[in-house]
Amino acid sequence: MSPSIPSEQWAQVIEKQGSVTYKKIPVPKPGPDEVLVNVKYSGVCHTDLHAMNGDWPLATKPFPLVGGHEGAGVVVQLGELATELKIGQKVGIKWINGSCLACPYCQRADEPLCAKATMSGYTVDGTFQQYAVAKAAHVARIPDECDLEAIAPVLCAGITVYKGLKESGAKPGDTIAIVGAGGGLGSLALQYASAMGLHAIGIDGGDEKKKLVEKLGAQTFIDFTKTNDLVADVKAATPDGLGPSACLLLAVSEKPFQQATEYVRSRGVVVCIGLPANASISAPVFDTVVRMINIKGSYVGNRADTAEAIDFFRRGLIQVPSKTVGLSKLQDVYELMEAGKIAGRYVVDTSK
Amino acid sequence: MSPSIPSEQWAQVIEKQGSVTYKKIPVPKPGPDEVLVNVKYSGVCHTDLHAMNGDWPLATKPFPLVGGHEGAGVVVQLGELATELKIGQKVGIKWINGSCLACPYCQRADEPLCAKATMSGYTVDGTFQQYAVAKAAHVARIPDECDLEAIAPVLCAGITVYKGLKESGAKPGDTIAIVGAGGGLGSLALQYASAMGLHAIGIDGGDEKKKLVEKLGAQTFIDFTKTNDLVADVKAATPDGLGPSACLLLAVSEKPFQQATEYVRSRGVVVCIGLPANASISAPVFDTVVRMINIKGSYVGNRADTAEAIDFFRRGLIQVPSKTVGLSKLQDVYELMEAGKIAGRYVVDTSK
Amino acid sequence: MSPSIPSEQWAQVIEKQGSVTYKKIPVPKPGPDEVLVNVKYSGVCHTDLHAMNGDWPLATKPFPLVGGHEGAGVVVQLGELATELKIGQKVGIKWINGSCLACPYCQRADEPLCAKATMSGYTVDGTFQQYAVAKAAHVARIPDECDLEAIAPVLCAGITVYKGLKESGAKPGDTIAIVGAGGGLGSLALQYASAMGLHAIGIDGGDEKKKLVEKLGAQTFIDFTKTNDLVADVKAATPDGLGPSACLLLAVSEKPFQQATEYVRSRGVVVCIGLPANASISAPVFDTVVRMINIKGSYVGNRADTAEAIDFFRRGLIQVPSKTVGLSKLQDVYELMEAGKIAGRYVVDTSK
Amino acid sequence: MSPSIPSEQWAQVIEKQGSVTYKKIPVPKPGPDEVLVNVKYSGVCHTDLHAMNGDWPLATKPFPLVGGHEGAGVVVQLGELATELKIGQKVGIKWINGSCLACPYCQRADEPLCAKATMSGYTVDGTFQQYAVAKAAHVARIPDECDLEAIAPVLCAGITVYKGLKESGAKPGDTIAIVGAGGGLGSLALQYASAMGLHAIGIDGGDEKKKLVEKLGAQTFIDFTKTNDLVADVKAATPDGLGPSACLLLAVSEKPFQQATEYVRSRGVVVCIGLPANASISAPVFDTVVRMINIKGSYVGNRADTAEAIDFFRRGLIQVPSKTVGLSKLQDVYELMEAGKIAGRYVVDTSK
Repeated sequence: MSPSIPSEQWAQVIEKQGSVTYKKIPVPKPGPDEVLVNVKYSGVCHTDLHAMNGDWPLATKPFPLVGGHEGAGVVVQLGELATELKIGQKVGIKWINGSCLACPYCQRADEPLCAKATMSGYTVDGTFQQYAVAKAAHVARIPDECDLEAIAPVLCAGITVYKGLKESGAKPGDTIAIVGAGGGLGSLALQYASAMGLHAIGIDGGDEKKKLVEKLGAQTFIDFTKTNDLVADVKAATPDGLGPSACLLLAVSEKPFQQATEYVRSRGVVVCIGLPANASISAPVFDTVVRMINIKGSYVGNRADTAEAIDFFRRGLIQVPSKTVGLSKLQDVYELMEAGKIAGRYVVDTSK
Repeated sequence: MSPSIPSEQWAQVIEKQGSVTYKKIPVPKPGPDEVLVNVKYSGVCHTDLHAMNGDWPLATKPFPLVGGHEGAGVVVQLGELATELKIGQKVGIKWINGSCLACPYCQRADEPLCAKATMSGYTVDGTFQQYAVAKAAHVARIPDECDLEAIAPVLCAGITVYKGLKESGAKPGDTIAIVGAGGGLGSLALQYASAMGLHAIGIDGGDEKKKLVEKLGAQTFIDFTKTNDLVADVKAATPDGLGPSACLLLAVSEKPFQQATEYVRSRGVVVCIGLPANASISAPVFDTVVRMINIKGSYVGNRADTAEAIDFFRRGLIQVPSKTVGLSKLQDVYELMEAGKIAGRYVVDTSK
Repeated sequence: MSPSIPSEQWAQVIEKQGSVTYKKIPVPKPGPDEVLVNVKYSGVCHTDLHAMNGDWPLATKPFPLVGGHEGAGVVVQLGELATELKIGQKVGIKWINGSCLACPYCQRADEPLCAKATMSGYTVDGTFQQYAVAKAAHVARIPDECDLEAIAPVLCAGITVYKGLKESGAKPGDTIAIVGAGGGLGSLALQYASAMGLHAIGIDGGDEKKKLVEKLGAQTFIDFTKTNDLVADVKAATPDGLGPSACLLLAVSEKPFQQATEYVRSRGVVVCIGLPANASISAPVFDTVVRMINIKGSYVGNRADTAEAIDFFRRGLIQVPSKTVGLSKLQDVYELMEAGKIAGRYVVDTSK
Repeated sequence: MSPSIPSEQWAQVIEKQGSVTYKKIPVPKPGPDEVLVNVKYSGVCHTDLHAMNGDWPLATKPFPLVGGHEGAGVVVQLGELATELKIGQKVGIKWINGSCLACPYCQRADEPLCAKATMSGYTVDGTFQQYAVAKAAHVARIPDECDLEAIAPVLCAGITVYKGLKESGAKPGDTIAIVGAGGGLGSLALQYASAMGLHAIGIDGGDEKKKLVEKLGAQTFIDFTKTNDLVADVKAATPDGLGPSACLLLAVSEKPFQQATEYVRSRGVVVCIGLPANASISAPVFDTVVRMINIKGSYVGNRADTAEAIDFFRRGLIQVPSKTVGLSKLQDVYELMEAGKIAGRYVVDTSK
């Protein structure tokens, strides 16, 4: 181990359900196909709260668990097989920490669907610590010119919305409705949509959201708290009045889903993103069939999506509205999150 | 008008909801972009019953209405613009009788989604008569070597299941589950699947169905009346145990739909076909998202699908189990249909 | 015929090979599936010169022939079946004047490949006259808010490059090389590429071209008259150094083609556009195979491509550098064209 | 090392250009991400001859080199990271021995295009020995029920033609021309085409080939030594006379390539496979553009293609005509190959 790697580090540790403890723990050691990353910044995602509260239908590793899966840092140690990376290289640790790279899904570049995929901050320790381990083949390559603090939230939120936009099948020139356009995911989705040549209809509630959504390049803002007929309004906002080619549902719940299946044009695609714990969706068969509606779930991106999403950021096309605090303040961030008081994304600085 | 075309003909006419009358009516005249077809045989579809009973959320033309949309016959008169067809040519009149050929959907070869599409036997008079009119650009071209009696049911049932198989995205070598495999649509779906290099798991109930399904080339038959765990059985019937790539739901109802979303492999496609009047479908968000499940409605085929579906028949790859009676006996067929007593397809001979 | 339609009109007529005559001719009459268009403006394309000079391997209609296939005007008369258009509606007459709408190609939305497709200004009279006839289903729908003078060149040049970009398979975020970026087609291709989220490398010669290409949004300009190693330079201009995903060859000749097959990345697509009379292209088998290179010919767009290309223009994303003169000056334009003295596009005003 | 693995083994070693030596060499040791395979049978491919003769534009590893890349055997030793395989499992060693699994190509499941891909029997020692090393993530998984002797040639020849058929874009029901249909690759291509629902036109020369091609399921055989107009004959053999959707060129040379670009239908795809050392291909621009012809190079399959190609074999859909001799006789096989005296595939048994 190189002299610059300490044996102990600061981390936020979930020792029991519902809270995190800021404490010193040992620095982990990478296996032969892994790297050790000095995490500089990590975004905080709603999923981290689910991990701490244990309220998702997916088990975490046994506690103690270090959360976090939007970590940006630099490689400080290489496993013997990690020949494609260099010490000092900027990398990101994302939700998918590793996968088998050999199963039918991995063979088809669908690593997130691998039955053996590990999840950072959930089934393996994540990025709310100063030194984290990740599979060399999976860490996101971050170009040198990118700022680590700014890019952190791209590593989960950015990739997820970018993947959803790709899955929508919408092509340049098409119109896409984005439900929840004024939120954290939504504001990234609007920028990716625009950079991809899509024309966005932003749907959200309130004048502040309207201002943000229009600033971020949406062609039209529709306020669901004010419209009398959201379906008609969305259709009217498309050039030929037939409705958007696709809809991105950033938090899937029953009513917005129903509306989406009505306002997308025939052959349209409704992409479901976001994982409310017990939600379900329903659609009438007749219309789904005669209008050939397509309903798709979209999970996180694979490694290629990751590289592409980062490249849009590198070109300066994506701005992430975020606020940075010290890693030691993570519990405060969770409290704001539970109170629904966060606009944009929080990032933690692991040095504080 | 050529001397061989009579001025009157026999037809089955819906004059009031719930019944048909066998009577003589005038032979219609084709417009400039239409042809007059001497219908020889016509398949009888469940949709014809809906047209007669008026129980679908889609209005028919005002009565009197002549039903029927699986008509096979020969061209006997050409409108002045119908230069791509010849007198004496074998053609089929299908569900989509005509469309505008100029709207965004028609421009993209999605004629069935055209807002101005007309439906044979539903919004325009259909094929339960000896002479019917159809748009020249839309009639199905039937190769000379094909038998008109045998091909009739391909013109709706065949095209519909073929389209559904294409929409499923399953590629040669993939496994597809077919729910309702032993029914009229199912027995065609099994044969098309096999001709397309797909491996089918047939799902239905009863030993008679089992025999039929296995005879028609399914790799596995699963009897939903006997299995304790249908989801597990379907998965186990795939080479890697991960479940089929797609599922064709030939009559969409709640339970088979739920099961399908569970047994298709991650990234799998559930194709909904069939139009029970008031059914709806529902799926849990969490699984749909993390497994990237795709739920699609598939309607009837376009003109290219039609030509392709017919070509499979021409090559002798598709056998339609059917029974032929005179057109005059249509009311009897409807009664059997309402009583659920039809296995396979009925065809009417317009000369009797 | 409505009183506002004269019986005679001004036109530029090819009466013998090599020249046009400005004279009065009768106004044509539309058939049942056609419309009469009062052409206001028409772009002048290199193809028009080929039609006049008869030097292409494709026969024109017998002279007299009226050239022109980038005509923007308004509908003044409707055939009886032209129910999808209105008198006074803005429309465009493009290269594909009509097609059978029923063959295997038309059924799959590939009208330009229809064996019976007619070509404006080539196999049927075109737009270098004040009143021209076109098939109702094929005229381009131009939104009211679009300026007819400005849009004329989009109707051939714009659609052609847009189609080529679609055929390239490049997706938003990808890099594409455009050879001949500073020419008439190239300057449109750069703008479409940018509007589609693509990053362009413009290849052309000279400082004036460099200035134009950079102004139109190319990330990089490569001057083929100055570089010592064009292949290396193009590769170096891509983020990962592996070369662009695709290349658009706007005038296909041997050397640029060879270079393109070398600098596109493995799995890359070389799209050939433009029709020099006797050119051919050649590639080494070994590299084409082990790098899985894809070489595609791209012709003009279909009707859907046309509508999409126009919609990009409508949104203000495409500026066409053009110069307008009276229709009576067409011979002068041809002389400039033959002398290679035209930068950008000439448009003729049919009223002068 | 387990007691059952000897320290020495028999191998065929290229010690100098142009010949192989049958001798005892040490058994290699697998690295952490590798496995040691007891090769039972190995197919002999033309590429092996190129490796021995050094006449390809691609360097081999320095001699001594053990050739062979169609090896079927069982896993006898696992590297510490090879957790997805088991001792005793049947596996195949194919052309692509390993790749980085992290570059842009590997991320997109295009491992054969990885710049660091290693090639069995070419850049690393191959399967003409009793014990060979391969990357655990890359060895082909062979189901237990498959016969190792019979499957060996599928591991290169089979995968390559299957990949080419996939790349052709031909879909079930389409017609595909296969040039060289009666050869080793061709006879596999015919069977895969048939299993994929494609209709094949086999092109080759001589009555023996005709017999074989028809037996293997081709709809039509065209004898290039007898036809007066091959292009016309191929087109005539398609249902609508417009030509096949695609063509597979199993050994690319100038004349068959030219013919293929003429007889494929508009929008058709010409797939080039096979690597004659210095061949090049050329096409006229005009036709390539106005008919939108697509020329593609297709290399070997990736790991997913491999699994799929094997599954077709497992289902009994692919029969490989082959002849087995002892590994010690390899030099004799090369001599027959150089003399052009081999019909079908030779397999060597490493135990003799």
